[in-house]
Amino acid sequence: MENKPSERIILGIDPGTTIMGYGVIKVTGRKAEMVTMGVIDLRKYADHYLKLGRIFERITGIIESYLPDEVAIEAPFFGKNVQSMLKLGRAQGVAMAAAISRQVPIHEYAPMQIKMAITGQGGASKEQVAYMLKQMLKIPEDAMLPWLDATDGLAAAYCHFIESSRPTVAGGAKSWKEFARKNKDKIHGLEG
Amino acid sequence: MENKPSERIILGIDPGTTIMGYGVIKVTGRKAEMVTMGVIDLRKYADHYLKLGRIFERITGIIESYLPDEVAIEAPFFGKNVQSMLKLGRAQGVAMAAAISRQVPIHEYAPMQIKMAITGQGGASKEQVAYMLKQMLKIPEDAMLPWLDATDGLAAAYCHFIESSRPTVAGGAKSWKEFARKNKDKIHGLEG
Repeated sequence: MENKPSERIILGIDPGTTIMGYGVIKVTGRKAEMVTMGVIDLRKYADHYLKLGRIFERITGIIESYLPDEVAIEAPFFGKNVQSMLKLGRAQGVAMAAAISRQVPIHEYAPMQIKMAITGQGGASKEQVAYMLKQMLKIPEDAMLPWLDATDGLAAAYCHFIESSRPTVAGGAKSWKEFARKNKDKIHGLEG
Repeated sequence: MENKPSERIILGIDPGTTIMGYGVIKVTGRKAEMVTMGVIDLRKYADHYLKLGRIFERITGIIESYLPDEVAIEAPFFGKNVQSMLKLGRAQGVAMAAAISRQVPIHEYAPMQIKMAITGQGGASKEQVAYMLKQMLKIPEDAMLPWLDATDGLAAAYCHFIESSRPTVAGGAKSWKEFARKNKDKIHGLEG
């Protein structure tokens, strides 16, 4: 029923303005495994443009190394104030530009949506998310990083894997409800 | 006294999320002239990433065509709400990434600063800014565009020309006050 390729690579990004986390997973059929995860430490760059430049350069490098089919970004839609949202928007925009310039499609997920997909709880802590990912992706203890930003990046990738591999019924609907709404005639046909 | 090259190109950008304006000026010594101006109309792209992709593609194209030495961006630091600031930040970030990826230095100016530099009034209207630019850059009537976004982009470039060509005295100071503060010993030496 599905025309998806059997193997695909997803790059997940958690775009912070001081530390940006990322994780790459490889999906084979219904199974996902971790390829890599890491952080881009922006604290050492005092200059705003150097920070943005470093984001662009590193994300471009990661895309060239792992050739992801898709990019998943954790994107909060609310922030403390307009100043911090502008800064965050710029960091997101630069990361997105790196993906766009390599023609890699982008998907966005709200932090709560990612936590929900991975732990079943929208209010889960970063530690709980990291713990669940460790179990689900069978990440060895020594491959875990001390930065929760890295697992947050990985979480975005894993969330996209879950969201995009939800079983679809005929007509591309993601749920029976949606299928029913789209295919009223077909249902009547089946019933009759 | 100055080590600046005799000719330089400045690209000015007014990064809106529906229409993005730009203008290119050529500076020869203390004289500036318009090279081009225009807009990137983003209204026809319903998808957010198509908009961002279009910004990246067009700004990259403009940079490749006119090879600016510097980019000046109009950057408001306050907005209506966090939502609009996030969107604006993304648009700015993508435009900045285009400049950064071509190693072109970026300078930012607040809207009030640009109006002040061009009209002498921080509260000037877009029409007043356009009028002053038309006079100062001797833009023929038929070269004026119906979009004030374009003249706003040009204004950012012209503002950077003014701000960066303020006469510097020995020691790189921008004013006598600053020079005096930095060179107390030299002044005493001159007096004695």
